[in-house]
Formats: sequence, C-alpha cells, structure tokens
Amino acid sequence: MTQLTEISAVKCFDGVQKRFEHDSQVLNCRMQFSVYLPPQAEKEQSLPVLYWLSGLTCSDENFSAKAGAQRVAAELGIILVIPDTSPRGDGVPGADDGAYDLGLGAGFYVNATESPWQRHYQMYDYIAEELPGVIKQQFNISKSAISGHSMGGHGALVLALRNPGRFTSVSAFAPIVNPVDCPWGEKAFSAYLGENKQQWQQYDACHLLENKQADWHIPIKIDQGLADNFLESQRLTRPLEEVCEKTGVKAEFGYHPGYDHSYYFIASFIEQHLRFHAKHLKA
Amino acid sequence: MTQLTEISAVKCFDGVQKRFEHDSQVLNCRMQFSVYLPPQAEKEQSLPVLYWLSGLTCSDENFSAKAGAQRVAAELGIILVIPDTSPRGDGVPGADDGAYDLGLGAGFYVNATESPWQRHYQMYDYIAEELPGVIKQQFNISKSAISGHSMGGHGALVLALRNPGRFTSVSAFAPIVNPVDCPWGEKAFSAYLGENKQQWQQYDACHLLENKQADWHIPIKIDQGLADNFLESQRLTRPLEEVCEKTGVKAEFGYHPGYDHSYYFIASFIEQHLRFHAKHLKA
Repeated sequence: MTQLTEISAVKCFDGVQKRFEHDSQVLNCRMQFSVYLPPQAEKEQSLPVLYWLSGLTCSDENFSAKAGAQRVAAELGIILVIPDTSPRGDGVPGADDGAYDLGLGAGFYVNATESPWQRHYQMYDYIAEELPGVIKQQFNISKSAISGHSMGGHGALVLALRNPGRFTSVSAFAPIVNPVDCPWGEKAFSAYLGENKQQWQQYDACHLLENKQADWHIPIKIDQGLADNFLESQRLTRPLEEVCEKTGVKAEFGYHPGYDHSYYFIASFIEQHLRFHAKHLKA
Repeated sequence: MTQLTEISAVKCFDGVQKRFEHDSQVLNCRMQFSVYLPPQAEKEQSLPVLYWLSGLTCSDENFSAKAGAQRVAAELGIILVIPDTSPRGDGVPGADDGAYDLGLGAGFYVNATESPWQRHYQMYDYIAEELPGVIKQQFNISKSAISGHSMGGHGALVLALRNPGRFTSVSAFAPIVNPVDCPWGEKAFSAYLGENKQQWQQYDACHLLENKQADWHIPIKIDQGLADNFLESQRLTRPLEEVCEKTGVKAEFGYHPGYDHSYYFIASFIEQHLRFHAKHLKA
C-alpha cells in the first residue's frame, strides 16, 4: 500500500484541486502529482478518470493552472490525474548542459536502459502501472482515458496503443508522433535507450500503428495548431495521420489555423477533448 | 501619440491574446500590458472593454494564463485589458528587503508622494488616464468596466468610485476594501503616501463610500472565498459590505465556503463577473 501525502487542496469549480506526494518504487524517488476531484466525487460510487501527460519542461502544475479543464471536468464528473514529466529530486540525473529536452522535465514516457538514466527514468512503467495502482487505491475509479500535449501526446498515444482495453479513448494536442525520426525524439531516445533503434520503435506511435503492434480500434482525437513553431521541425501530428490513412485506422484530426504550441491552444480546445472522452468513458 | 510595440500575439478561443510594450510618461519607465481581443474585434466597429487589475506579485501575465477569462470574453465580445501591477525596469526602486508587498509588483494603484517612490509609482494616474488613452488610440472602444483581485480589487473599486461615469460597473475578487486599516495597506500607504493619513483616505473604498465621495450608483459585484487566508488578517470584503449596508449602497456580495485566495477561485467565478459586466457594458 503506497503512502500518499496530500500537499495541498484548493477548491475549484465546486470540486477540489489536490497535490499528492509519494515514494515511487518504479522511479526510485519521491514524486508529486495533481488530481482534480469534481464535485460528484463526494457523492458517487465511482468516477471515470482522465490521465493528462504534459509536455517538455512541465510539472504537474502547468496543466492544472492553465488549461481550464476543471470547469468541464466538474460538469462531466471526470477525475483528472496529472503526473509529473520525469523523475525528480536529489540524486536524479539531469542533462549535463541543463537542456530542456533531456533529463528533468523530459522523461519522454520511456523505460530507460542506458546509464545514467536507467535507475530513475522509468516513466513508461510509472504511468502504465504504478500511478494507476496508486490512483485506484486512493479513489473509486470506473474507466480511464488518456490525453496529453506534445511529448505528453506521444506518451498518451504510446500508452494507449500498447495497452489495449486499458483506456477507453486517447487524445492529444500537437503530439510528437514519430519520435524515432524527429530531433527531440532522437536526442532523448539515444540517451535513454541507446543506439539500437529497434528498441526505439516500441515508443513510436507511427511505428506501432503501421506494424499493427497496437490497439487500432481505440477512439483517437488529435488537434494541431497550424502556427505551431514545432509542427514542421518536430514532425508533429501529420506523420500519424498518414499512417492512419494507409492502415485504415479511424482517427479525428483537427488542424487549426493561427494556433501555436502553447497552453492558450490547449485551453481553447480542452473542452472538446473532455467531451470526446466523456462519451467513451460513460459508454 | 504613444508608440506601442507588440511583443507577442497568440491565438486563443478564436481571438488573440497580445502583449504590448510602451514608454509610460506617467510612470517614467517602459511598461508592458496584455490585451485579449475577442473574435468580434475583426468585424465590429467598436467593442466594450474590461480592465483587470491584478494582485500583489502579479504581472500582466497571471490573469491571462490562469483565469480562463478569454473563453467567456470571446463569447460576449469583450476586450480584456490587463496592466502590470507596478512600474518596472532598471531605475525603478523596489523594496529594500525584496518584500512582495511593497515596490515591484505592489504599486497599490496610488500616486506616490514620498521618496524614493514618487518618480515612478503613479499607478493611479496610469490606470485612470494614460493606459485608457493608449487603449482608445489603438482600439475602437465603446464602454469600459473594471475588475480586479485583492490589491487589484482595491484598485478597481477606488478607480470606479472616484470616477463617476467612467466605468459602467465594477467587480472584485477578495478585495482589500479598507487599506487604511489593514497591514498590507498600512505598509504600502506609509511608504508611498507618508504619515498623513488624511492623504490615504482618497484610496480607501470604505472611506470613499462612507463619506459619499464616490459614485454610489455604479453596479458593484464582489465575491469572496471563505477559506481565504487573508480574509481576516487583511479585513477583505466585509468592511465594505458593512459600509454598503449603513449607507444604503446596493452591491452584490457573494461568500463562498471552501474557496481560497488563489486563481483557482478566480477561475471558478470569472464567468459570472464577465456576464455581470456584459449586462452593463451593453445596456
């Protein structure tokens, strides 16, 4: 039984925004995460949960403060669980040069096999196994869905595609979809997984779908801003749409002129994502 | 004609969140402020504006990122103008001990008369005169309303009460209503205005209303969280309600169990405030 420490609890849209801390066995460090409990949590037996995976540099607090998701979660009766994006704390290695796209805040939702990362950087297992265990122990959960932004969109897609039946639905904002072939992914995967690119493919949404190593019946919704600075350079979203077309996988892709990579984009469309997930979480 | 430099423009809820920079003649420094232009700004001749005054430690970016106001402003066709909370930059004095409640981020919306503050700390005139001039020069404005949080709630009330006809309506979240008699106000007013407490009263909403040195026909809406750490210690909200009762001034006061002083409280109720102002802005 994991011991959870409640760090804070703030009322928000008639529910409560909480932060917890716990010892992660998988990551070998102390971890914090945020949870939004909608008002229905006080009355109903069990509620659905949406896991939100954040992008590079974020902690569990960015989405909580900036996306405006609680308003809709309160209406729909959905618990939001927002993990951190990497292991943290004393003894957890970061990038030697303090880079924003490797190490702290950049766990990339993989299980590292290489030094010095492998002792702590096991974010895939943390999100796939340990954290849901902690959540189910603490709250009465019905079904689960998953969503994320950028690096977190990559994480959400990979976790959903590789674990059929675990999530009712997956969505993403401006996701890294083909990390084996973009600068962010190549840098992180080289460091965490080594030079054997075969090992990388298990964490690549395009590869998983193209090779049918995936649940391709799961409902997928992806939104992408067309003024996103990283759209071309990191090959966001579009390679996955091509794979979906080629393989006949059905997914909703929305492209939005003028929107960038920021939380202003997420805030503008989070309501649609929550309603998309609610449809499947409550089916 | 003030030269405005656009620092950034980010699409948000079909409108645009912008930041501008300009030389303030009143504050003798370079100032930044944020503006949200709803989608109607592209089509309509003129739009109403809501000025938002932030609380201690904030810049123009906190409300922009955290309150979720753009969604409702986009629906209602209201421009949001969000100034900084003090003068800034090289040469602008801050508190000697780096305190959060004096100097930078703590202008208190007064015109300082004391050294070393008086050269830059003229936030009352900046918000009352210079900034509205800049806004009217840049955008086609119909009517104006004003709102704010904590120190900014104080600023909004004082500005509205002292300038009859300038604003259609005023609202506040957890406002400092009686700064002449609370620790934050006493500290700031002593520094900025000196020891003659007569001079303080022109910046005290309770005093202005009680002494009928105010527009007391303006619609007023105030919300207050009952789990707000500062409610008792800074005597937020309640002294003004007492004055309103005594003087027969009509105002809407809402007290909300469980809510604290944070942006999670503001986000939960900002929609109601925007709809309150819209009713008067469009009357």
